[in-house]
Amino acid sequence: MAHAYDNHNVFARILRGEIPCYKVYEDEIALAFLDIMPRIDGHTLVIPKFPARTLLDADPDKLGELIKRVQKVAIGVKNSLGAEGLTLLQSNESAGGQVIFHLHFHIMPRWEGIELKPPASAMEGPDVLEKFQAKIAEALR
Amino acid sequence: MAHAYDNHNVFARILRGEIPCYKVYEDEIALAFLDIMPRIDGHTLVIPKFPARTLLDADPDKLGELIKRVQKVAIGVKNSLGAEGLTLLQSNESAGGQVIFHLHFHIMPRWEGIELKPPASAMEGPDVLEKFQAKIAEALR
Repeated sequence: MAHAYDNHNVFARILRGEIPCYKVYEDEIALAFLDIMPRIDGHTLVIPKFPARTLLDADPDKLGELIKRVQKVAIGVKNSLGAEGLTLLQSNESAGGQVIFHLHFHIMPRWEGIELKPPASAMEGPDVLEKFQAKIAEALR
Repeated sequence: MAHAYDNHNVFARILRGEIPCYKVYEDEIALAFLDIMPRIDGHTLVIPKFPARTLLDADPDKLGELIKRVQKVAIGVKNSLGAEGLTLLQSNESAGGQVIFHLHFHIMPRWEGIELKPPASAMEGPDVLEKFQAKIAEALR
């Protein structure tokens, strides 16, 4: 059931600058940007710059570096939006809920009484995305 | 909103050997065991041996080591149970879905057409848990 990494996926194209994104953080290891179909306000994705299809095929040492960026971005998201909690989700293969086959971590800030929307419920408007982008990027600067 | 680590939580008690668990993997950094209220067959938890309440307060370098164990256990779970995919979930604070306040990663093997049960739906029987424990532990030996 092992599948190879395919460099034509949407996140690889974002990394190559072929598609824009609402970037909130970037360093030599990782890129973080807003999910344009957010399950909750501030829903952010962290992806590695190195090729990996899922959690399972990532180089372990590089994964160890990546999770530090996930933590950093998670803290920035939570603090900048005044969230009460945070849900981290990472899906592997279609059966596991994965849609884009480049390893990614979903960072979803949470507030009591506000449920997550189902995945890919609706496209968010640019004005809303830009507002959250500015807040989160500022906290991560 | 920062909360201190409380050493009386259930996972701290498991780490101290005060409460038993269906262990599938252990090394100097991490302990992995079955969730006794599984959301799907083979639902496994990976926890650090170091104290951390959530993803957010974990020492970054230790977190980098922990995620390598999460990956290792995930591969063992997926392969030993012939899963088609895998969902990784990590909840922070009550608003984020956390119930036990010791950092933990949920590893949930997935198969097409089988949904996850809601959290804490029902206690699984010891016979079923022992069967999955044996399979997963064998793959991780």
